[in-house]
Amino acid sequence: MNKVFMVLVLAGVPLSVIGTLMHWSSIILFIVYCLTIIALASFMGRATESLAIVAGPRIGGLLNATFGNAVELIISIFALKEGLIGVVLASLTGSVLGNLLLVAGLSFFIGGLKYKRQTFNVFDARHNSGLLMFGVIVAFVIPEIFSQTMPESKTLSFSVGISIILIVLYLAALLFKLVTHRGVYQTDDVSEGRHEEEEPEWGKGKAITVLLLATIAVAYVSENLVHTFESVGETFGWSELFIGVVIVAIVGNAAEHASAIIMAYKNKMDIAVEIAIGSTLQVAMFVAPLLVLISLMFPTAMPLVFTLPELITMVTAALLMIIISNDGETNWFEGATLLAAYLIMGIGFYLL
Amino acid sequence: MNKVFMVLVLAGVPLSVIGTLMHWSSIILFIVYCLTIIALASFMGRATESLAIVAGPRIGGLLNATFGNAVELIISIFALKEGLIGVVLASLTGSVLGNLLLVAGLSFFIGGLKYKRQTFNVFDARHNSGLLMFGVIVAFVIPEIFSQTMPESKTLSFSVGISIILIVLYLAALLFKLVTHRGVYQTDDVSEGRHEEEEPEWGKGKAITVLLLATIAVAYVSENLVHTFESVGETFGWSELFIGVVIVAIVGNAAEHASAIIMAYKNKMDIAVEIAIGSTLQVAMFVAPLLVLISLMFPTAMPLVFTLPELITMVTAALLMIIISNDGETNWFEGATLLAAYLIMGIGFYLL
Amino acid sequence: MNKVFMVLVLAGVPLSVIGTLMHWSSIILFIVYCLTIIALASFMGRATESLAIVAGPRIGGLLNATFGNAVELIISIFALKEGLIGVVLASLTGSVLGNLLLVAGLSFFIGGLKYKRQTFNVFDARHNSGLLMFGVIVAFVIPEIFSQTMPESKTLSFSVGISIILIVLYLAALLFKLVTHRGVYQTDDVSEGRHEEEEPEWGKGKAITVLLLATIAVAYVSENLVHTFESVGETFGWSELFIGVVIVAIVGNAAEHASAIIMAYKNKMDIAVEIAIGSTLQVAMFVAPLLVLISLMFPTAMPLVFTLPELITMVTAALLMIIISNDGETNWFEGATLLAAYLIMGIGFYLL
Repeated sequence: MNKVFMVLVLAGVPLSVIGTLMHWSSIILFIVYCLTIIALASFMGRATESLAIVAGPRIGGLLNATFGNAVELIISIFALKEGLIGVVLASLTGSVLGNLLLVAGLSFFIGGLKYKRQTFNVFDARHNSGLLMFGVIVAFVIPEIFSQTMPESKTLSFSVGISIILIVLYLAALLFKLVTHRGVYQTDDVSEGRHEEEEPEWGKGKAITVLLLATIAVAYVSENLVHTFESVGETFGWSELFIGVVIVAIVGNAAEHASAIIMAYKNKMDIAVEIAIGSTLQVAMFVAPLLVLISLMFPTAMPLVFTLPELITMVTAALLMIIISNDGETNWFEGATLLAAYLIMGIGFYLL
Repeated sequence: MNKVFMVLVLAGVPLSVIGTLMHWSSIILFIVYCLTIIALASFMGRATESLAIVAGPRIGGLLNATFGNAVELIISIFALKEGLIGVVLASLTGSVLGNLLLVAGLSFFIGGLKYKRQTFNVFDARHNSGLLMFGVIVAFVIPEIFSQTMPESKTLSFSVGISIILIVLYLAALLFKLVTHRGVYQTDDVSEGRHEEEEPEWGKGKAITVLLLATIAVAYVSENLVHTFESVGETFGWSELFIGVVIVAIVGNAAEHASAIIMAYKNKMDIAVEIAIGSTLQVAMFVAPLLVLISLMFPTAMPLVFTLPELITMVTAALLMIIISNDGETNWFEGATLLAAYLIMGIGFYLL
Repeated sequence: MNKVFMVLVLAGVPLSVIGTLMHWSSIILFIVYCLTIIALASFMGRATESLAIVAGPRIGGLLNATFGNAVELIISIFALKEGLIGVVLASLTGSVLGNLLLVAGLSFFIGGLKYKRQTFNVFDARHNSGLLMFGVIVAFVIPEIFSQTMPESKTLSFSVGISIILIVLYLAALLFKLVTHRGVYQTDDVSEGRHEEEEPEWGKGKAITVLLLATIAVAYVSENLVHTFESVGETFGWSELFIGVVIVAIVGNAAEHASAIIMAYKNKMDIAVEIAIGSTLQVAMFVAPLLVLISLMFPTAMPLVFTLPELITMVTAALLMIIISNDGETNWFEGATLLAAYLIMGIGFYLL
């Protein structure tokens, strides 16, 4: 399997560069870009896993979420620059839905096919539930409702205020997890100890190098991928909303998909959940508000006001994840439930 | 008590047939029908209990939910045939509210008057919570919101897609519960062992015969009952929505009411909860989507789009049950809370 | 610290009386009133704490919530008499938000700075979660939705019905907690035993006297405080809604703030939570419905229909608290999350 990805990268990256420069047909470029990103993501997954073994599950999960979302952040900044606020909000929605339902759903489902019951730290689950309720529900629903009876300029001020609060609380959450309460809620020392005996595939230096190179390549390919969306959408009859919410999310989160599923398959559910939910929280509490603040420097500022279908899908997805992850246990059926919810939302955005 | 029901059945069934043929006054027929159904339901309850002792709590609960909802399915198909989409959606809403709040509320309340604390399998409770969140909240709220900005034909396609997903996930839930994870979450072997020493009232053969005959009689009486609703509604000043949501639900779920309360009174909360919540899930994830698919064969197709009061009452009822059942424990006050919620919603539909 | 409050009371109460009679400038009166209330609240806190040591944590918490809300009830009745329905609904909203997010948030945060993990009775947490879901979500959301398709007279009838149900269930909750299930869920006899060895600061008689006198003084000052709101609002550019939701809540709940934080700082989280959540429940399930019923005696009756921003902030605040308090544990970060939610809502009401 690793050899297939190696071939795909060695062929895909040069093909992407050549194809882009030579203006090949959009459909062909679209396929080349997607395969290349997925192959690069597998390298990122392996590099992250090596680092995770060295650095422990939490830092490993954080690293992964960061590298996955760096790509999205870069793409979104380019889109904001061109005033495509609707596409940015749609791709943020897609990231939240993709991570919460598709990444977590596939992890729980595929992990659950191998293991009857998989567990993860129940304290982390509850900590994450509180943040999902805050980041996705409180911070996104309130501006939506208030903006209905507010002039536009106040909506923007409100969005800026909420964005600052979100980023401060996100940083406070890191402080809590990594400094003041580091290790306080670790109940599974024994099982963690067992994992840490594993040998990392790559050394620290090699893993970091691979991670950096792959991230740069993913960023380059992703940016070009965005330009193919318009003609691909026309060819397949996909709306811009559907492309933003579904296609960008699947391809853009390929790294998380790959590594979360690998972790679930290896029964390291702590890392799989950290990737899926941690990544969601990073999008909602860091990437989204940061984009609101960055948009102030561009001609069209972006308020934190989603469309109603975007908001309701995110809210119901968050509630579903809160209830399902509440007990710190997963099985294939919980994965199937998350995937079914994703499928319903995907069909909805396709028809919209 | 059993003798009273025996007399009611022996008098009620022939009186129902004679009264129907002789076109008695609607009010009298209404009362005869209701009492007959309640008496028949007590036989169904006893037959189900006998089967439950033979087959164990899970299969017993499933049997019960199935026989309870078969009646509703038949009535709804007749109503769909006549194009009464509003009545069908209202009676589905009423079934969800009736099972979640009235049946469970009475079980918890009456059981709680006898026992200070009653417990049921906490894993089942969490499994059910995930399904309530999916079946009632995700699958019902999303089409409501999306249909606001969709043409009618797409809303129907979306409803059909969601219906298929709901039925597939419902079948997957049965697979999970009865095959792949059968017995995996059983923590209370001891208490179950104690129950299973009980002697069933009737043998397997007699119980099945009684269950079948009673179901047929309930179906016959129920169908005639529906025709009395219009004039009863006029006499008492009840709207069609109130009749659909409250009256059909109470009479149509009499079987569940009776047996869930009997089980709660006997401290078999696993079965009582399985009847109340299992029945809700069957309505939301199997009966409702099946009716959407069946409606495609009739002149007027039924989309899965409820009115806002119907949707919001179902969503808040599901959230209330998720929170209350979360700990696998019940008491009289939790029952009273559910009943109070039912009362508020009943008054609302009465005034609407 | 206690001496500062003693000076503030000895100076503030006479100054409040003199200033009121001599019609000083509103801004000065506003500051005098606020400081006096906060100082009086510290006396109420100390008196309540003394009584709590004598009477045990539950009765102590109930006492505190009762005395805190007596003030609000009196102010609201004066406002209803003047037909200021919007202000009453806003101050009820502010009480719910203030207790759930500000009082609990400060308690969890400040308590959490001293102690890494603080625990409270998990059964109480779940009992409260069910009531929050019922009182804030079911009972407030349903009339909002139904009133959209109801004539005004029916909305009022519905509000009256819901109010009676809320009060009955609130009394049933007291019956449950203090009579039928008193001590049934006490798991922490040891830790409570440890607390009860403490000596109360004041005897029973002195504590009750201080509590009564302080309550009367707070009521007098609060009532005058209300009359300064209009000109203070003009001076600072605050809308009536902002004053109702934020200022009235902070000053009106000063007593709860003070004593909940004191209790959290002393690691008596059972009492701190009882004050914050118990007070919320008393406002939602007792004060609000009582005001609806009392309003029937005045020219303009008050239906239980909040504005959408009021409703959504209360619903999201209740959901956030349910998720955060679910495990019976708190830490500084959970406090920070609640405070961040309060800040977002406060900014929203300020801008509205």
